[in-house]
Amino acid sequence: MAKDVAKLAIALHKKLGGKIRIMPAAPVRNRADLSLVYTPGVAAVSLLVAKNPELAREYTMKGRMVAVISDGSAVLGLGNIGALGALPVMEGKCALFKTFAGVDAIPIVLDTQDTDEIVNTVINIAPAFGGINLEDISSPRCFEIERRVVEALDIPVMHDDQHGTAIVVLAGLLNSLKVVGKRLANVRIVISGAGAAGTAVAKIAHAAGAKNIIMLDRKGIIDATRSEPHKKELAGFTNPHGIRGGLREALTGADVLIGVSGPGLAKAEDIKLMAKKSIVFALANPVPEIMPDEAKRGGAAVIGTGRSDFPNQINNSLIFPGLFRGALDHGVKKITQEIKLKAAYALAALVKKPTAVKVLPDMFDKRVAKAVAKAIR
Amino acid sequence: MAKDVAKLAIALHKKLGGKIRIMPAAPVRNRADLSLVYTPGVAAVSLLVAKNPELAREYTMKGRMVAVISDGSAVLGLGNIGALGALPVMEGKCALFKTFAGVDAIPIVLDTQDTDEIVNTVINIAPAFGGINLEDISSPRCFEIERRVVEALDIPVMHDDQHGTAIVVLAGLLNSLKVVGKRLANVRIVISGAGAAGTAVAKIAHAAGAKNIIMLDRKGIIDATRSEPHKKELAGFTNPHGIRGGLREALTGADVLIGVSGPGLAKAEDIKLMAKKSIVFALANPVPEIMPDEAKRGGAAVIGTGRSDFPNQINNSLIFPGLFRGALDHGVKKITQEIKLKAAYALAALVKKPTAVKVLPDMFDKRVAKAVAKAIR
Repeated sequence: MAKDVAKLAIALHKKLGGKIRIMPAAPVRNRADLSLVYTPGVAAVSLLVAKNPELAREYTMKGRMVAVISDGSAVLGLGNIGALGALPVMEGKCALFKTFAGVDAIPIVLDTQDTDEIVNTVINIAPAFGGINLEDISSPRCFEIERRVVEALDIPVMHDDQHGTAIVVLAGLLNSLKVVGKRLANVRIVISGAGAAGTAVAKIAHAAGAKNIIMLDRKGIIDATRSEPHKKELAGFTNPHGIRGGLREALTGADVLIGVSGPGLAKAEDIKLMAKKSIVFALANPVPEIMPDEAKRGGAAVIGTGRSDFPNQINNSLIFPGLFRGALDHGVKKITQEIKLKAAYALAALVKKPTAVKVLPDMFDKRVAKAVAKAIR
Repeated sequence: MAKDVAKLAIALHKKLGGKIRIMPAAPVRNRADLSLVYTPGVAAVSLLVAKNPELAREYTMKGRMVAVISDGSAVLGLGNIGALGALPVMEGKCALFKTFAGVDAIPIVLDTQDTDEIVNTVINIAPAFGGINLEDISSPRCFEIERRVVEALDIPVMHDDQHGTAIVVLAGLLNSLKVVGKRLANVRIVISGAGAAGTAVAKIAHAAGAKNIIMLDRKGIIDATRSEPHKKELAGFTNPHGIRGGLREALTGADVLIGVSGPGLAKAEDIKLMAKKSIVFALANPVPEIMPDEAKRGGAAVIGTGRSDFPNQINNSLIFPGLFRGALDHGVKKITQEIKLKAAYALAALVKKPTAVKVLPDMFDKRVAKAVAKAIR
């Protein structure tokens, strides 16, 4: 990041003193107001909701409020910087929720990184919320935490680092394939990184019809010989031809490279191993797995990154606001794989004629959140 | 409560869909805004705060945000109506925090009533908050929960049903004593109810210099023969003359009756047992322990209730907004008994010449929160 952006951001945050404010929805100017908003009138509302819990969506903040919850264990590309370090990011995310989709969202950062404690805490504080966005929780803990919280609650719960990323990657990939004239069912997709994002990208691509996905982690190509449960699960639906080796073996003849592992992954020569009209998404922030010009020299036809200063920014801000907006509006209780696919298709459809430099809509395109929200009805 | 107030309150809540909204403190109109509020700029703020946790008060919402936390076990006079039943009350309280003192506050209602779970959950979610207002948690669990959370955290934590009530009662009592020309050190104070409010009232009155406090619970006057730890503690500093019996024995010759136990406590004949120029605070809501006209017939000189439709409304809305405002502004880490006393004195001092029908300022008096906040510097 440019030094001046860092300086400006620090100055802005100091000036603001936090990015989130609470506003009462109704004024309390006098005793008449007070008697309705608070005692004695509120007692009638409390009794009504206590007797009919399903009415909480209509009569309380539960119908509109999402909790953005992090334990600070995997914040941006900064790693395990803890609860307070995560807080500015969560506040920013809540600002985007409101700005892009009118969703009220509040950050909760946790003073624990123990899986059981996190699961219990999230379940314990859930009643007031209509949805839960888990955020920046490290892999593989994020998988168990999300699974257990989803099972326990009847509100939408989503770990955005997994599924927000996966949905927007799929949307970008579908439009990139249009640009190069290839079909998802026929391409070989290499995913570098088997953490939160990589795992979810693999799963949604598979669910969308991709048949030849090869995943890489630090040990190389993931295959059936792996013993960790999470890697075993990935091996179950990827690497159909049992390829062994590392990045070069995976890339040889591949159509798509999706990097969600960190800078320094590949050079132009590696990209040259890929099939013609290759697609490269290098999503590490701020430094991508391969810089766009280097990927281009390797022959990539469509290149996407997580950055706003290159074409094709692939950013989950295109998804999470509209997804929770839709879930709240339509009373969705679980964010299923089907819902995620619908969201990806809706996002992709907003770009009528994708080109090599425009596979996704702009983040500030006002149609985005509406289209995503509508899609998951 | 009048039927039309209930109807109006229900209609208002349905129209609003909850009483709390989130507003971003800075607009996100374009990529330049986004790069400061969110990535990449926010990373610099996250690193700064992670390395210097004390800066969270300046750079994040922690400097201004209070969590209002309830398990729904003792909501208003409605009893144990659970988390969702409590939510409208907590939202109302958050609206008052903002309206009266500019404090940002968010409701958290808990899906557990287990003491250990509550303590762990509150501690786990504390990092983002500059203060914690525990609310409507039943006695005696509220004492242990508050004690353990206060010990664990370095932010102000207060169970408002105890201390907010106690502070405003002490302020009202001090001014009532002025009206009748008596001194706190010399009067006999009878407190009916040894739950959250009664216990805290007894403790603050004792700390302020009251020497003769008699407490009653369902079993009668509390004395040294009681075995429960909580009642034993109360017996340690109350009932100095070892009086035994019930309400009539306690009231005979007493100067002050404070009811925090529920309707149907006393009649005019009981009040007649008290000393001349007696003071009666009947604080149960909506039906007081004794109606003001009945207390008057018994000879009470100053009468207070929790209701807005009688003179001398004794309501903790006079305290909690200013108290947390002051604690946030002045970096207070524990709300000590000394701070509570200062708040009570500051509130009482706002009524220059107390009369029998005006012992406390009006809730909408804009000086109140400021004076309370300033007092606890």
